Amino acid sequence: MKVALIGLGAVGRGVAGMIAKKDLGITITGIADSRSGCIEDTGIDPAEVLDHKKKAGVCGDRKISAADVIKKADYDVLIEVTPTNALSGEPAIRYIKAALARKKHIVTSNKGPLALAYRELTTMAAKKGVAFRYEATVGGAIPIMHTLEHGLAGNEILAVYGVLNGTCNYILTRMVAEGLTYDQALMEAREMGYAEADPTYDVKGIDTAIKLVILANTIWGHGVKLSDVSVTGIDLLTPDALRLAEEDDCTIRLIAEAMPSRRLLRVSPRIIEKSHPLVVDGSLNALTIETDMAKEITLIGKGAGSVETASAIIGDLLYINDRYVQRA
Amino acid sequence: MKVALIGLGAVGRGVAGMIAKKDLGITITGIADSRSGCIEDTGIDPAEVLDHKKKAGVCGDRKISAADVIKKADYDVLIEVTPTNALSGEPAIRYIKAALARKKHIVTSNKGPLALAYRELTTMAAKKGVAFRYEATVGGAIPIMHTLEHGLAGNEILAVYGVLNGTCNYILTRMVAEGLTYDQALMEAREMGYAEADPTYDVKGIDTAIKLVILANTIWGHGVKLSDVSVTGIDLLTPDALRLAEEDDCTIRLIAEAMPSRRLLRVSPRIIEKSHPLVVDGSLNALTIETDMAKEITLIGKGAGSVETASAIIGDLLYINDRYVQRA
Repeated sequence: MKVALIGLGAVGRGVAGMIAKKDLGITITGIADSRSGCIEDTGIDPAEVLDHKKKAGVCGDRKISAADVIKKADYDVLIEVTPTNALSGEPAIRYIKAALARKKHIVTSNKGPLALAYRELTTMAAKKGVAFRYEATVGGAIPIMHTLEHGLAGNEILAVYGVLNGTCNYILTRMVAEGLTYDQALMEAREMGYAEADPTYDVKGIDTAIKLVILANTIWGHGVKLSDVSVTGIDLLTPDALRLAEEDDCTIRLIAEAMPSRRLLRVSPRIIEKSHPLVVDGSLNALTIETDMAKEITLIGKGAGSVETASAIIGDLLYINDRYVQRA
Repeated sequence: MKVALIGLGAVGRGVAGMIAKKDLGITITGIADSRSGCIEDTGIDPAEVLDHKKKAGVCGDRKISAADVIKKADYDVLIEVTPTNALSGEPAIRYIKAALARKKHIVTSNKGPLALAYRELTTMAAKKGVAFRYEATVGGAIPIMHTLEHGLAGNEILAVYGVLNGTCNYILTRMVAEGLTYDQALMEAREMGYAEADPTYDVKGIDTAIKLVILANTIWGHGVKLSDVSVTGIDLLTPDALRLAEEDDCTIRLIAEAMPSRRLLRVSPRIIEKSHPLVVDGSLNALTIETDMAKEITLIGKGAGSVETASAIIGDLLYINDRYVQRA
């Protein structure tokens, strides 16, 4: 199977590294970062590209753009792993459309296109008869989409509840464990690399809400938008609130909830029993899926990380290889 | 897709009930309990059979045996859900072999054949070009096999750690929560229907060990046997041991562990931090899968129950329908 890899940040480097290391039957024929690209129909050595990127700061030829790679390279699957732009979804939406127009399968870790153009992109993929997969967008390494689609096949999904932002969970865990204030815990999260310089998207609950929108649309296909989600962040939480919860053997977590029967689509700090499976520590993510037959299934794992996210992308690639490319 | 359903205990009734209730594209053409059977090439109404079984005590004609149904009915998949016999694996092994000889796919919830004849049966299924699936044998409703096979595709599985017996977990949870002795908690578990009259297999760790053997053979294919597992049960645990663990913010759970790199295959009560994802309450099951890319993924859910187990079986049926029957 031939792939074009667009984006060489932490996720892209993780994917390239795993393709180099593992015998997955995947050949990279096109690769691009934000400033350069490389096309080689006979295959690009990912280890060499990563090395070149490290030394030269770019992965290929500055005259070749990501758009060129998408339009000209010979590949089966576009791996779109450029950074999420939650306002415009670009340039990812443009990239994905260009590849779909060429009837290429899509694997992405980019939440922007999913949050902003879910229906348009999935409809276009269906019309072209190609796969559009995005396991990495929600819950990092946790195979949430696979579980919804296959593991729980035949079940009616009644609701989902999740801890979907590692930054918030790390901050809340530290506030409880060490009695830190929100600001102290945030500072520590920054130092540990769990929070970005501008943590607004994370701590205000927006990143979690985007993931909830992706989940809800995947499960129920109602075409909900970010503006449909009632969102409260963790930035106003006090150590007192956490202490009060502790007294009842509870704690507070930023929980995303979707339950169509109650028209519920909400992200908010919730008081939750400590023994509940969703109460995970540190930067972990967790999702409880409520179904008619299996009842409650909870999945826990790393919500971020270069190789962890690569795991989700490679799972999608192997699925496409098995279901589409090998069959063709 | 046509199925033959052998066994009408809690699991079989759950499967029949869900096939009756849901529009899954599944037709039952043969059905049998321990004393009767029914063959109907044009389809059997599962609701009617369940009703008849309730009133008459048998599901069909006493002159028709399970073996007759397996040999004579027209079906694509044998659903083998007779009770587990951990000593002989019979009559399930015989049933499965008879269906495999007819090139029928197999879905089973029966741990006996998996623990005693794993290689023989999987080899026979491979030779015949049919599927042999057993999601329901480990972790009840939790889609463990699907996750290992698909959700974590491309990952190397390094180890598994699990809480795989709801009876033991219920007893341990109650010993801690209420300060009960082992005997008191066991009595309560019996009253609640979480423990059988003879709980030996559960509390001695044997049921957990059988599930660990099934997991290990599925993941690594080394052909391990029950006798390869080092097994300690929970029946000698004292409230004092649990209290000591509590003092360090830990608790005790019956943990199944398999890690080939350390030649580890063990079931034993382990002291474990309370915040660890494997520490689940009551009769829940949990499994942590340690991999090279995704790192640790934990799955939690109901390990038993009629409809919950039916969920796993129906997931296997829909998988076979999608991958084999529809393609044929």
